[in-house]
Amino acid sequence: MIYTYLGPAGTFTEAALLQVPGAAQATRVPSTNVNTALEMVRCGEADAAMVPIENSVEGGVSATLDAIATGEPLQILAEVLVPITFVLTVREGVESLAQIRTVATHGHAWAQCRGWAEKNIPKAEFVPASSTAAGALGLLDPLAHHDAAISSPLVAAEENLRVLAGPVEDNAGAVTRFVLVGKPGPIPEPTGNDKTTVILPLAEDRPGALMEILEQFVVRGVNLSRIESRPTGEGLGHYFFSVDVEGHLAQARIADALTGLHRVCPDLRFLGSYPAAGGLVTTVDDHTSDKAFARANAWVAGLRGNLGS
Amino acid sequence: MIYTYLGPAGTFTEAALLQVPGAAQATRVPSTNVNTALEMVRCGEADAAMVPIENSVEGGVSATLDAIATGEPLQILAEVLVPITFVLTVREGVESLAQIRTVATHGHAWAQCRGWAEKNIPKAEFVPASSTAAGALGLLDPLAHHDAAISSPLVAAEENLRVLAGPVEDNAGAVTRFVLVGKPGPIPEPTGNDKTTVILPLAEDRPGALMEILEQFVVRGVNLSRIESRPTGEGLGHYFFSVDVEGHLAQARIADALTGLHRVCPDLRFLGSYPAAGGLVTTVDDHTSDKAFARANAWVAGLRGNLGS
Amino acid sequence: MIYTYLGPAGTFTEAALLQVPGAAQATRVPSTNVNTALEMVRCGEADAAMVPIENSVEGGVSATLDAIATGEPLQILAEVLVPITFVLTVREGVESLAQIRTVATHGHAWAQCRGWAEKNIPKAEFVPASSTAAGALGLLDPLAHHDAAISSPLVAAEENLRVLAGPVEDNAGAVTRFVLVGKPGPIPEPTGNDKTTVILPLAEDRPGALMEILEQFVVRGVNLSRIESRPTGEGLGHYFFSVDVEGHLAQARIADALTGLHRVCPDLRFLGSYPAAGGLVTTVDDHTSDKAFARANAWVAGLRGNLGS
Amino acid sequence: MIYTYLGPAGTFTEAALLQVPGAAQATRVPSTNVNTALEMVRCGEADAAMVPIENSVEGGVSATLDAIATGEPLQILAEVLVPITFVLTVREGVESLAQIRTVATHGHAWAQCRGWAEKNIPKAEFVPASSTAAGALGLLDPLAHHDAAISSPLVAAEENLRVLAGPVEDNAGAVTRFVLVGKPGPIPEPTGNDKTTVILPLAEDRPGALMEILEQFVVRGVNLSRIESRPTGEGLGHYFFSVDVEGHLAQARIADALTGLHRVCPDLRFLGSYPAAGGLVTTVDDHTSDKAFARANAWVAGLRGNLGS
Repeated sequence: MIYTYLGPAGTFTEAALLQVPGAAQATRVPSTNVNTALEMVRCGEADAAMVPIENSVEGGVSATLDAIATGEPLQILAEVLVPITFVLTVREGVESLAQIRTVATHGHAWAQCRGWAEKNIPKAEFVPASSTAAGALGLLDPLAHHDAAISSPLVAAEENLRVLAGPVEDNAGAVTRFVLVGKPGPIPEPTGNDKTTVILPLAEDRPGALMEILEQFVVRGVNLSRIESRPTGEGLGHYFFSVDVEGHLAQARIADALTGLHRVCPDLRFLGSYPAAGGLVTTVDDHTSDKAFARANAWVAGLRGNLGS
Repeated sequence: MIYTYLGPAGTFTEAALLQVPGAAQATRVPSTNVNTALEMVRCGEADAAMVPIENSVEGGVSATLDAIATGEPLQILAEVLVPITFVLTVREGVESLAQIRTVATHGHAWAQCRGWAEKNIPKAEFVPASSTAAGALGLLDPLAHHDAAISSPLVAAEENLRVLAGPVEDNAGAVTRFVLVGKPGPIPEPTGNDKTTVILPLAEDRPGALMEILEQFVVRGVNLSRIESRPTGEGLGHYFFSVDVEGHLAQARIADALTGLHRVCPDLRFLGSYPAAGGLVTTVDDHTSDKAFARANAWVAGLRGNLGS
Repeated sequence: MIYTYLGPAGTFTEAALLQVPGAAQATRVPSTNVNTALEMVRCGEADAAMVPIENSVEGGVSATLDAIATGEPLQILAEVLVPITFVLTVREGVESLAQIRTVATHGHAWAQCRGWAEKNIPKAEFVPASSTAAGALGLLDPLAHHDAAISSPLVAAEENLRVLAGPVEDNAGAVTRFVLVGKPGPIPEPTGNDKTTVILPLAEDRPGALMEILEQFVVRGVNLSRIESRPTGEGLGHYFFSVDVEGHLAQARIADALTGLHRVCPDLRFLGSYPAAGGLVTTVDDHTSDKAFARANAWVAGLRGNLGS
Repeated sequence: MIYTYLGPAGTFTEAALLQVPGAAQATRVPSTNVNTALEMVRCGEADAAMVPIENSVEGGVSATLDAIATGEPLQILAEVLVPITFVLTVREGVESLAQIRTVATHGHAWAQCRGWAEKNIPKAEFVPASSTAAGALGLLDPLAHHDAAISSPLVAAEENLRVLAGPVEDNAGAVTRFVLVGKPGPIPEPTGNDKTTVILPLAEDRPGALMEILEQFVVRGVNLSRIESRPTGEGLGHYFFSVDVEGHLAQARIADALTGLHRVCPDLRFLGSYPAAGGLVTTVDDHTSDKAFARANAWVAGLRGNLGS
């Protein structure tokens, strides 16, 4: 197996990939961005890509949401949750917070630590880096100018960087959700606590258009665990929705909801059913259990037995 | 073929039955009430029964609505519309409206002519009869006491009764809808303009319980053409709904709506799909056409092909 | 005070009227039908009329539902529940059930006792009477021909008629709901457990038209306790709905729901708010309490304080 | 008047600010990030801040969405649309695309030009800059290392930079929506084509929770023009919604919808009503016009006149 992931090595994304059974022993190729990682999967250079999709503080990861919503179809095979915590590492010679004039990190990480930075290193200027690991590695590069970096403890440990403070994130308990993406193929077995991801272009811009979509879930008792609107690129006011629901395609209520969605939104895209991470427990109402669907289908099939051929 | 109908001969119900192809040549047995007529069908003494179900002025015919909703299952095979018009017939010797002191007719007919009666024969007392035909026939019976009767023109003509006034109904253009009821069996072919009748017990008495039922129709674009609440007999506040919708069980949107209804209301009863009388034209939205359902089902079936066995 | 009621004396309707505080001491004028009773109120001859509106076995009383829905406005002042039980009374000389060939009663009563009659007096023919009391009184009339009558125990006792069997109703525990109707005027104080009755003409015949009406209740957490469809008289498929909801006009959620209904259905008719009989306990959700409405209104009023004049 | 905006000078945000009447003559203070700009408004150092809120390609601007949703209340006073187009500017000495090894720009700009870059400068590495203007200005800085920058034509012209290619965006016609944000105060007059922005925390995570919110809009015929989910920061699965609807607080249907929303979602935040940019034409249904609300309110007020005091 060849895996790719949003690199470089030492990012939270690699930590997520290492949670996948067997990934530690497999080939792991870092990609410089989400699009490149997914392209490797699409063209067969990698079997699967680990990419971030949502952060509990920063929200949806637009690059991933958009890249899996369009282009050659892909499929989500698994989700992984990684607790996010940051440390402040410094260049050799920097001994105290007061000395820090510039701090490099990825924009998303900066957003999560800004409060701490404003209080503790108020005069430090933010230098955007292409990843938290890149910012940290820059501290070892004499050509780079920044005094400090905000990164994962992993890369600090691996590179033996000096940690001056940590954790430095504003919201303790932040979590990022990563998804393992492959080519469309066999769907993981249902575990009872699964998620299904779909992309729903909103056809019309009028009261009730979004409700018509949600109604297809509600009449089957299907719970939404995430909904994000994203622009289609056709101009302001044109959106698609990226939606996670609780349940698995193997369950009748999900299959039935997808059937209903296809009618009102024929350009929808199924992005996979996969085990839910993080202890989600899905309870299914009697009226929407597989048994209830089986009984209902059997009843209607019985009635239809009286139709002329 | 043996038909029964709500008799006696000469009622609007017989007129409805005579519209059924072949009924004029078949055996036609009058029944004294709706229950008796339906019982003859249930026990096999008659092949089908013609009974009134709804009047455009008086509303639903409770006896019929209740009798087909419970007991041994029955099936509606056809519906027939009959324009309702009444005449005032009198006993020999009665020469003017002013002479009339008592007028016999069925309570439903009386309700439809009361305005005329209050204006034209204000002193006449209403004598309830078991049918309009029975009231009219009583005028030939020396033991009966009423001076006049309100009945169909048919029985007046057949029995050669004197017609003193007519039409005497308050709302011109009244129509009664009759249904031909048989044992469950082959369902009439869809014509494109059909109705389907279902009985829906309302499980719970709370905001939204009725909406949950209606939603099952709305998400499939199924139009209701009639809805009646009826008591279940278990006390005030316990209802079932008798519902006609536009469409045929052979159509995917109806079959799908019935499947959804069975889940939320497993005790529902299917009473048949049959051609709509009276020029109803059903238009079906692209999103709820058989093609849209077929495409949606095929799409989901394709996805499910990737499920493990 | 002058009361009228659906007579004659001795019917269940008089029993209902006698439950109204003060009615036993007031003038009580029987009317021969619901329309006449309501007309007496409309023209000022009576202060209020007691009429049946719904029976737990037979359903809505069409004459009442229609008469209060149209014409000069009326207002429901109170509701009264009366348990319905019937006895079989006989003409002098009739000693056993086997002797009975004809039995007179009102059609509604007959409907509620038909099962008993078919078992116990299978050969007896039904003779429709204009009321159960009239059928019973006929037993004292030598010109009437029926052998037996089905009536309330009240009239049997008052008239000293021989009771051969009872109770004879098929469903023990039947209840009829009566309403006391007056001219529009002061509305009874809210008790916390009240009902509000409205008449809602359904403007359009399409999927969702009824749902749009129900939604106005659902978004304010208003529970329906009764819904009846009735023909408008303009032809099959044209209905109005007669609806009881739990709550009082004095409560914000009812006033707000009525405001919403007026927008989508401007021809609606308010028929009153009055104490609920029979131990109905209405619970109101925090989100739809008067407090929640008051807070919401105050919040929006505060925002609107920033609008230009 | 003192305005601040997401700087530095020469960004699209300054172009947006210059569209505000009078802003060209007013003091304009660039801020280094959205939070700083809004903080200047909150503490009174600036009267209003211009910040980007949504891009037709990149979607919502998280920093802005989050910053106006929490903290001291703010109010949107106006929206401005700016067409987004990019040019490729180069350092002195760079003569052809083939020479470019590094290209600096803001991540959002890079996302919008990546397709062009992969085709035309496939070997060039992306260097994140804190803004498009900062990337361009770096070309004049001998200490910076990048060969090229992607920026607005405005800054290229102002700084006299060499433009090697343009437009270089992948989607022609991209537009960014900016909002002018001030302290809560007088609300701009309604123009007939307005927007209202609200923040709606989603209380519960269950089927129908989002629908309950949307229903409050739908029952008043209020159209959504934008909906974004954002994490509350309390963990995955906890969202608030940032919503724009068509209409103005001065209109009854918006005031009524806000009242309903406050009941189901008491922690909602009103962020202002302001003229819609870009030729939005709002049509209002008869049933949801101010007249319909006025008539409905008058009708209910009339009924309530009969309530006891």
